[in-house]
Amino acid sequence: MVKDDCIFCKIANGEIPSATVYEDNDFRAILDISPASKGHALIIPKEHCDNIFEIKADTAAKVFPLAAKLAKAMKEALNCDGMNIVQNNGTIAGQTVFHFHTHLIPRYEGDGVNLTWKQHDTQAEDQQLLAEAIRTLL
Amino acid sequence: MVKDDCIFCKIANGEIPSATVYEDNDFRAILDISPASKGHALIIPKEHCDNIFEIKADTAAKVFPLAAKLAKAMKEALNCDGMNIVQNNGTIAGQTVFHFHTHLIPRYEGDGVNLTWKQHDTQAEDQQLLAEAIRTLL
Repeated sequence: MVKDDCIFCKIANGEIPSATVYEDNDFRAILDISPASKGHALIIPKEHCDNIFEIKADTAAKVFPLAAKLAKAMKEALNCDGMNIVQNNGTIAGQTVFHFHTHLIPRYEGDGVNLTWKQHDTQAEDQQLLAEAIRTLL
Repeated sequence: MVKDDCIFCKIANGEIPSATVYEDNDFRAILDISPASKGHALIIPKEHCDNIFEIKADTAAKVFPLAAKLAKAMKEALNCDGMNIVQNNGTIAGQTVFHFHTHLIPRYEGDGVNLTWKQHDTQAEDQQLLAEAIRTLL
């Protein structure tokens, strides 16, 4: 199903033109019009879902194989030195279009992209309790 | 296959203890000992591969379904407001352990995590040429 007012539904299904890198029955991969770095691409499923909390398992299963296929071709085409795969869920996480999508951000020396984070200390006992709290909900 | 000197091979296969959130034949998910935020988890395949450029398709196919399953449980257990899924490839991309792994970073108001990037302008014609250069290598 597509969602009427969703720009990524329109792009994925070809109603709005894009610089398409790949297309099949389930996905379109495009170049981001406002890239973090040269060749920054997006993998967008044609069927609408807002985020990872809503995605169907069969759609989810196709994301990383496609990301791997694209990453290899992009590395060769772009001669980049590395790549970040980023998938944001929720405004607080930096999601700006509320249609599930996965960023492939090629990385180059001096590209000015910074996707690192501050690391915090933890106590082993606290981590075991937290892990258990998550495990019981799986 | 595991790699002798790889700490994530040892963790994934249980030789080094961890705060395990999930385990099956192919993967272990653990809490990061130096988290970006409370509940920051890692999905680690038991079989060694360095990065997305080397991953097998059948392993890749299991990553996002597992990420989605974990993300839902983590959202409920942690009461987070969103989540970043991040998978880094290469030193330049922030990869520090050279065994493919995927970060699940729960996000909270005021958590101090910043995984955004500066957006750059592009020309439609340049993007079409770049897309074509990648497409021909797929």
